[in-house]
Amino acid sequence: MLERYINEYKARTKRSRELFDNAKMVFAGGVSHNIRYFKPYPFFTTKAEGKYLHDVDGNVYIDYWMGHWSLILGHSHPFVAERVIEQASNGFIYGTVNKISLELASIITKLIPRIEMLRFANTGAEATMYAIRLARAYTKKRVVAKIEGGWHGFNTELLHSVNYPFGNEGLGLIDDKYLISIPFNDLSSIDILDKVKDDLACIIVEPFMGGAGAIVGDKGYLKGLEEYSKKNNALFILDEIVTAFRFKCSSMHDILGLEPDLITLGKIIGGGLPIGAIGGKKEIISLASPEFKKDERCNIGGGTFSANPLTMTAGLATLEYLKNHTYLYDELNRLGDIARREIDKVMRSYSVKTCTTGLGSLFLTHFLNDNDEVRNARDASLCNIELQKLYHLALMVHGIFFLPSKLGAISIMHNENDIKQLIEVTEKIASEIHL
Amino acid sequence: MLERYINEYKARTKRSRELFDNAKMVFAGGVSHNIRYFKPYPFFTTKAEGKYLHDVDGNVYIDYWMGHWSLILGHSHPFVAERVIEQASNGFIYGTVNKISLELASIITKLIPRIEMLRFANTGAEATMYAIRLARAYTKKRVVAKIEGGWHGFNTELLHSVNYPFGNEGLGLIDDKYLISIPFNDLSSIDILDKVKDDLACIIVEPFMGGAGAIVGDKGYLKGLEEYSKKNNALFILDEIVTAFRFKCSSMHDILGLEPDLITLGKIIGGGLPIGAIGGKKEIISLASPEFKKDERCNIGGGTFSANPLTMTAGLATLEYLKNHTYLYDELNRLGDIARREIDKVMRSYSVKTCTTGLGSLFLTHFLNDNDEVRNARDASLCNIELQKLYHLALMVHGIFFLPSKLGAISIMHNENDIKQLIEVTEKIASEIHL
Repeated sequence: MLERYINEYKARTKRSRELFDNAKMVFAGGVSHNIRYFKPYPFFTTKAEGKYLHDVDGNVYIDYWMGHWSLILGHSHPFVAERVIEQASNGFIYGTVNKISLELASIITKLIPRIEMLRFANTGAEATMYAIRLARAYTKKRVVAKIEGGWHGFNTELLHSVNYPFGNEGLGLIDDKYLISIPFNDLSSIDILDKVKDDLACIIVEPFMGGAGAIVGDKGYLKGLEEYSKKNNALFILDEIVTAFRFKCSSMHDILGLEPDLITLGKIIGGGLPIGAIGGKKEIISLASPEFKKDERCNIGGGTFSANPLTMTAGLATLEYLKNHTYLYDELNRLGDIARREIDKVMRSYSVKTCTTGLGSLFLTHFLNDNDEVRNARDASLCNIELQKLYHLALMVHGIFFLPSKLGAISIMHNENDIKQLIEVTEKIASEIHL
Repeated sequence: MLERYINEYKARTKRSRELFDNAKMVFAGGVSHNIRYFKPYPFFTTKAEGKYLHDVDGNVYIDYWMGHWSLILGHSHPFVAERVIEQASNGFIYGTVNKISLELASIITKLIPRIEMLRFANTGAEATMYAIRLARAYTKKRVVAKIEGGWHGFNTELLHSVNYPFGNEGLGLIDDKYLISIPFNDLSSIDILDKVKDDLACIIVEPFMGGAGAIVGDKGYLKGLEEYSKKNNALFILDEIVTAFRFKCSSMHDILGLEPDLITLGKIIGGGLPIGAIGGKKEIISLASPEFKKDERCNIGGGTFSANPLTMTAGLATLEYLKNHTYLYDELNRLGDIARREIDKVMRSYSVKTCTTGLGSLFLTHFLNDNDEVRNARDASLCNIELQKLYHLALMVHGIFFLPSKLGAISIMHNENDIKQLIEVTEKIASEIHL
């Protein structure tokens, strides 16, 4: 029984509790972003450094959340922080074009050659919104197909069929007749798109589902979506906000042999500062050019803060570091493999049926109910999420932070001992589950 | 004839020209954000400090663009920069709740009491998108009324009727039957909303139109929109992304005696780092709470980078500085008054018919054609925008930067001598217009 950890967590986080009570006065439910809420209340971070988070009660956690998976170099890596600090004295936002954005764009197009041209936005949600707009502009068609459980940020276009039981995602959203959801890792029902294929602007898919629970897309399935798109003159958009520069010093599409028309980026390419980007074929991105008149142009941002020198500096430093240390990916991927294998092993040794999914340095332990595997968002939703959250809370009491029910990310600051410790603590928690 | 300034600008910006040629290889039209493009090509900023921008050719400009008007304290003000630099070593993004966001939320609710609760997003475009979603969630109605020429960012909901000749804003946007545009500063045609009033979710309006050209809303007009909203059970949303903390250490609504249900914020509250916020009545913002089940909740972000400690630190430092130096607003507003009055005076003395609009420290010089005044976006669009852009390019050659055709913002780093210099240079340029 892991419930005892709730009280232990409370005993260790008294100052956070007070702050949370204050936060409820100004934030709905005490948080400014719902996924950062967890029961009984979230701790308040006061400092992050390397692989550690420090909270206001003096607790220290080995962090596997890593800034929503955006910090592959860990928190405030000196190579990045020093340049960000230097830039902070030279301006946060120029509001004008700058060389750093050109350098960041150049390194991205070099490392991901399918990105011939790109545009920087401020968030992933903006990037996917712009991708849809570009697809509609380029194809002159309207229907967007997304994946059931697919997460592309809070934009209205794609905030549909995200969370179980899928379909509508709450109040204030109007049913969108131009949006269709299709299952993940299952091509058998792709013919539901046939009835709209003449109006199909794009299929957008994460090659690795992040928010839905660290689920790898089958190569054949993704290739099938790509072929269906091309056959029907629709764009194939790969949302690589989570995956680009995560598994290798490039994006995931070439691991899988995919040829997307557009790729959305975010997270790692900003080095921890706000960023999104939309890139791909020149003839598509070019539609955004200011050289075109209003009615011949696809009006995508930018935005006030886009390509600001602080974000550009952090992103450029991060990608330069990765480019000069590509061997680090082998270690990151290896540590992830160990975590996936060993966590399930110790869980099984205490008769706890888990399935730790993921790829490379990203992983999430699902607690299986009736299902045997997790191949899509529906499978993940049918797992024992309450137990998963308690497991993550128990880890916190033991000084290891996963945002409850969200996948973990290994950074280059983590080492094999950290993974061993995670497995040891997991073994202890596993032994208590059936007590 | 101001055309000679094009060649002078080119002669002074050769290195920028080279970079711009490179930029065209990776960015559509050479820019990542279209409004940063201007003819013949934009200069590349390499450093910003106080009131100055430095470009790659060694030119120095007194900056009136000021980071899309977000830098009321000037670039990298030490009070802000020092705290941002300290924070940069302690983490860019925690991915968890933090005390700094609570402090920033608290100071905002204190200085703008109508904001009982709020939520941080990353951009103004996200904030206004969330405002629309909340309005629809709260009222259970669908239609959104916006202003012709009103600018609320690049979100799909509100990217309509922004630029002359208004209506559709380009490729990739689907006609939205739930969006209606109404004129600015003119209540006579508000009855076009009567036919949708039972389905009217909100009216969203900037009390001072920024993007449309520094146009002040009449108090009676804005009050009329508010009354119409309330009478028809629709929300009245004031977009104060540009205006909050610009004219006084609070938002513009209380200058005008308005009582909006929701207020959107951005720009200044982030101290130059990416931010947006949506605030207002507790009973409306509460709909976003994670305590509600999915289908009873209004799903607004957040977002990965929302409430990140770097932005929160910059915003908090900025608002604390403003709160402790409220007397600065008198000077900012006075300098704006001088600019508006004197620019038009020197222009008129050379028979150039201008109308410098604005309020407080925001101002823009319109070159009138047939019209005598600029009271809405249509009036502004009918002015001589090519001449306005040439005027701004000429100012650049004289070391003064306005983003061509965009309004200028005075920061606390500007002083009366800067305004005098602006007027003197304007006089010189005015003398050349009819040559």
